[in-house]
Amino acid sequence: MSTQVYTVGIVGLGSMGMGMARSCLRAGLKTHGFDVDAARVQGFQGEGGQKGDLAQAAPGLDALVLVVVNADQAESVLFGSGLNEKLKPGAVVLGCPTMAPAVAVDFEARLAKTGVHYLDAPISGGSVKSAAGALTIMASGTPEAFAAAKPVLDATAETVFELGDRAGPGSAMKSVNQLLAGVHIAAAAEAVVFGATQGIPPARTLEVISRCAGTSWMFENRVPHIVAGDYTPHSAVNIFVKDLGIVASASEGAGYDPHLTKTALAQFKAAQGMGLGREDDAAVAKAYAAQAGVKLPGDE
Amino acid sequence: MSTQVYTVGIVGLGSMGMGMARSCLRAGLKTHGFDVDAARVQGFQGEGGQKGDLAQAAPGLDALVLVVVNADQAESVLFGSGLNEKLKPGAVVLGCPTMAPAVAVDFEARLAKTGVHYLDAPISGGSVKSAAGALTIMASGTPEAFAAAKPVLDATAETVFELGDRAGPGSAMKSVNQLLAGVHIAAAAEAVVFGATQGIPPARTLEVISRCAGTSWMFENRVPHIVAGDYTPHSAVNIFVKDLGIVASASEGAGYDPHLTKTALAQFKAAQGMGLGREDDAAVAKAYAAQAGVKLPGDE
Repeated sequence: MSTQVYTVGIVGLGSMGMGMARSCLRAGLKTHGFDVDAARVQGFQGEGGQKGDLAQAAPGLDALVLVVVNADQAESVLFGSGLNEKLKPGAVVLGCPTMAPAVAVDFEARLAKTGVHYLDAPISGGSVKSAAGALTIMASGTPEAFAAAKPVLDATAETVFELGDRAGPGSAMKSVNQLLAGVHIAAAAEAVVFGATQGIPPARTLEVISRCAGTSWMFENRVPHIVAGDYTPHSAVNIFVKDLGIVASASEGAGYDPHLTKTALAQFKAAQGMGLGREDDAAVAKAYAAQAGVKLPGDE
Repeated sequence: MSTQVYTVGIVGLGSMGMGMARSCLRAGLKTHGFDVDAARVQGFQGEGGQKGDLAQAAPGLDALVLVVVNADQAESVLFGSGLNEKLKPGAVVLGCPTMAPAVAVDFEARLAKTGVHYLDAPISGGSVKSAAGALTIMASGTPEAFAAAKPVLDATAETVFELGDRAGPGSAMKSVNQLLAGVHIAAAAEAVVFGATQGIPPARTLEVISRCAGTSWMFENRVPHIVAGDYTPHSAVNIFVKDLGIVASASEGAGYDPHLTKTALAQFKAAQGMGLGREDDAAVAKAYAAQAGVKLPGDE
């Protein structure tokens, strides 16, 4: 096997998965791309990706990277049709969606039965970083899982945090990040609309607060969407309904009451209820604005 | 008057006011410092400050800078003993505490009766920036108020945002900043404790999240206090009970419901209820930790 080229399969060729697949190709890995959208698969094959379906390819894979939307899809791909039994012993599965730590622990245990490693490997950084092979990966798993995944990590990530020697801590840290990201997006929306109730235009709030102690990564990234009235989804409202739900659920399991998380979640759900689930997550500002009766840029 | 040295009085020689007073001295302004603490006043006089009490000095002041704790103290200083009638026409009062925009509007109107200008001038930046003459000031007022205050602004600030030609917008923007700052401190605490419930030590959360999209100015500034278990007050829990209360009250007046603000306020009040009001605002983490039953650094 040492003379063969490392072979990787990426499941999910959305903006994140496609970037990772291309990064693997660039790194010289033999790369399969899989997606329910056949046009994406064919497009990737045209760029140098391998032919063949997932079930056929599985026994030859050194790594299977799941870049699907959530834990349910990951469960379905891995265990829904017996794929787990087709993977060879010593192969590694990288789980990239945000999911509950307990789910990652469960995946690791079930794959171990056939000698397959699992790397709990949620990703962060967005589509631009993914395309550049410069993701941040919050990873945890056995030393064997890290070793087996190394070519993929090298090809796709700028920063790999090694957070523990078993599955769970990677997903836990990603959940901590999503807690903050979600609360900060909702806080940015709440602040912009509060400013508007006090006569301050959103563009002024952006200009001033970006240079003050009230700023956050998300404030500076998302408030420009509100100021432009452009809710083209970079990351959708639905994503934070899912991710803050994961935080709330994991907290409940630990007897912890995350007050701001639950409050922000209610605001994202309010936006979802207004039909904005597929808009950019900055559209949570529209839920605040509707309640306050103020207009935002882009409102007629 | 043009041949006379510009004369300024600073009321409140706490860490912020003392820094501003020293900055005025360095800039060559004739500077009076006033405080209820006689030792601070004498100390400042020893550094070159002017002698004499506030009532005596008032008629000679070109600018009076209020660096007191809140609107009630500002009201008391200005109007409690008729100081407003001792100030000369054309002088300017700079109001630096965080206060409701409506209070700033009221001060402007009442001072105008005797020809005294008012600059709504909340400050931001902390004691280090204050000592360096490098504050951020969120200012609004008439052109005459800005012109009269210019030597003070030049001496004390690195950045002066000119937010409008009347009092109110300065305090409104400061309130927007405090909304975000307060929510972000509470969110940082909530996230650190959530991480702890999932087995992640606070130091690890700090290390990873500081480099991810979940970060904020306050996260990076306050979480080190939690990691060190050091709650020496840089800014106290009590300050955010006051400031988030101002946001909540101004919101209510505008028919707006700031959900995260109210949730964060409840957490700061919980910390206050635990007897932590005078500790650093990062001590809000202790309220979360107590609820979750987890230990933080510094807990035995």
